[in-house]
Amino acid sequence: MTGSPRPARLMDGTALARRLTDETTAAATALHRRTGTTPCLATVLVGEDPASVTYVRMKRNRCAQAGIRSRHLALPAATSTARLVDAIGELSADPDVHGILLQHPVGPHLDERAAFEAIAPAKDVDGVTTHSFAAMGFGLPGFVSCTPGGIMRLLDEYRVELSGKHAVVVGRSAILGKPAGLLLLGRDATVTYCHSRTRDLPSLLREADVLVAAVGKPDFIRGEHLKPGAVVIDAGYNPGNTGDVHFASARERAGLITPVPGGVGPMTIAVLLAQTVRAATRQLGLD
Amino acid sequence: MTGSPRPARLMDGTALARRLTDETTAAATALHRRTGTTPCLATVLVGEDPASVTYVRMKRNRCAQAGIRSRHLALPAATSTARLVDAIGELSADPDVHGILLQHPVGPHLDERAAFEAIAPAKDVDGVTTHSFAAMGFGLPGFVSCTPGGIMRLLDEYRVELSGKHAVVVGRSAILGKPAGLLLLGRDATVTYCHSRTRDLPSLLREADVLVAAVGKPDFIRGEHLKPGAVVIDAGYNPGNTGDVHFASARERAGLITPVPGGVGPMTIAVLLAQTVRAATRQLGLD
Repeated sequence: MTGSPRPARLMDGTALARRLTDETTAAATALHRRTGTTPCLATVLVGEDPASVTYVRMKRNRCAQAGIRSRHLALPAATSTARLVDAIGELSADPDVHGILLQHPVGPHLDERAAFEAIAPAKDVDGVTTHSFAAMGFGLPGFVSCTPGGIMRLLDEYRVELSGKHAVVVGRSAILGKPAGLLLLGRDATVTYCHSRTRDLPSLLREADVLVAAVGKPDFIRGEHLKPGAVVIDAGYNPGNTGDVHFASARERAGLITPVPGGVGPMTIAVLLAQTVRAATRQLGLD
Repeated sequence: MTGSPRPARLMDGTALARRLTDETTAAATALHRRTGTTPCLATVLVGEDPASVTYVRMKRNRCAQAGIRSRHLALPAATSTARLVDAIGELSADPDVHGILLQHPVGPHLDERAAFEAIAPAKDVDGVTTHSFAAMGFGLPGFVSCTPGGIMRLLDEYRVELSGKHAVVVGRSAILGKPAGLLLLGRDATVTYCHSRTRDLPSLLREADVLVAAVGKPDFIRGEHLKPGAVVIDAGYNPGNTGDVHFASARERAGLITPVPGGVGPMTIAVLLAQTVRAATRQLGLD
């Protein structure tokens, strides 16, 4: 057996993100009508890395389209950790700010974890704090990391049964691989974390009913690695719009697959926006 | 192939716990000499479940032997969550208390998570708060859950190489299975979480270089499930001193195995004591 009888069905993140964002826009409008308050996301950028500048601009544009204000704080590359923590602490205390996004990576001279922890849990709409991580781990109320959250929504949209299935997560970053695995475990999947030190990755990949690729290596996973009919989530975002999965070969073997672009990427921002409006709603005492 | 050429080597938790506790006792004595302060663990027990009463008494006895004061708070079974949270909050604020242990399970009418979260992270020597969970997940400084922490010390004592090895954790409780997996992942193991919904558990068990059994079902895992030469950690604690692993058959096949009793159990208390003295040391500004 070398493949499914027909190419995998695509999981259309663009369409789902648009629908979710329409709901978010309606919720933001309703909140404004009811309270006079427009939800506000504060974006924090340290330095001028071109990719980061682009990401932040894109997120702010999407906010504007969804009826969310954004307030941008641009800090020089030489900002100290203490200064960054202070700035984020001020945003955490500011009642006009409902969500906070610190664009990462920050510079190597900075303690990113300390900066993340300065985000009040109630405003952690990007799901980067230890509080949010534990909430995902324990199935408690809270915000999810946006990319894992987007992945779960895609899986639900395509009615992927998770209970008892073997989900293999390749990558173990604090905001992607690790929380994705915890969310899948919370939905009763058997979860395997693979990473750079994993031996015999191919045989583990071949066991995956659901595969989440989050390694940041272009075309790292190929069709021949997959279990026929697998659900393949490509959370890779590499230069040149390349995912971590070699799409053409994987599509021949998978049952469902996210394209890159148009799969996980749009969902990440859609979850950010949805969580920002939810944060505002809660902070205004309406949830 | 039906087994190793000879029975597995035992991982002697009793001996290692004794050594660790000797170190803890020396540290507590030194701390007292230096500061006049004796480390103090507050134990909180709701109701009078006989097993819980016994566990708490045992922990307090061990404290006394190690030069740690303990202060016991016995609350009636009918205590409300609010009252319990308040009581723990008071201990969190009390400078004479350095560590707090809430014996669980608490009654089903109580919000155990809310009670755990009332423990100040600096005093969470049992490693039950979301803060400690995230610290384990991210490899940050903090206290570990005691049983997973004891498991890691046993693995280190017996020089079990973890990097790249496949560790299979059976069970996903908040204070045992989940944190054990995160600690193993932090040491570069490939980690699989299995649980009650897992399909084809036997084939996953057979892949385990390191197996952590934390299901609470007597003799649930048997020798024929094991990969020959596997390292078997039995974290089960079932009535009648029975572990989750059928010892006689597992011993024929494993390379290293923890007995029950005398394996993981003594390590759990040893880690609790060690973390209590460490907490006191930090709170006294000496670390």
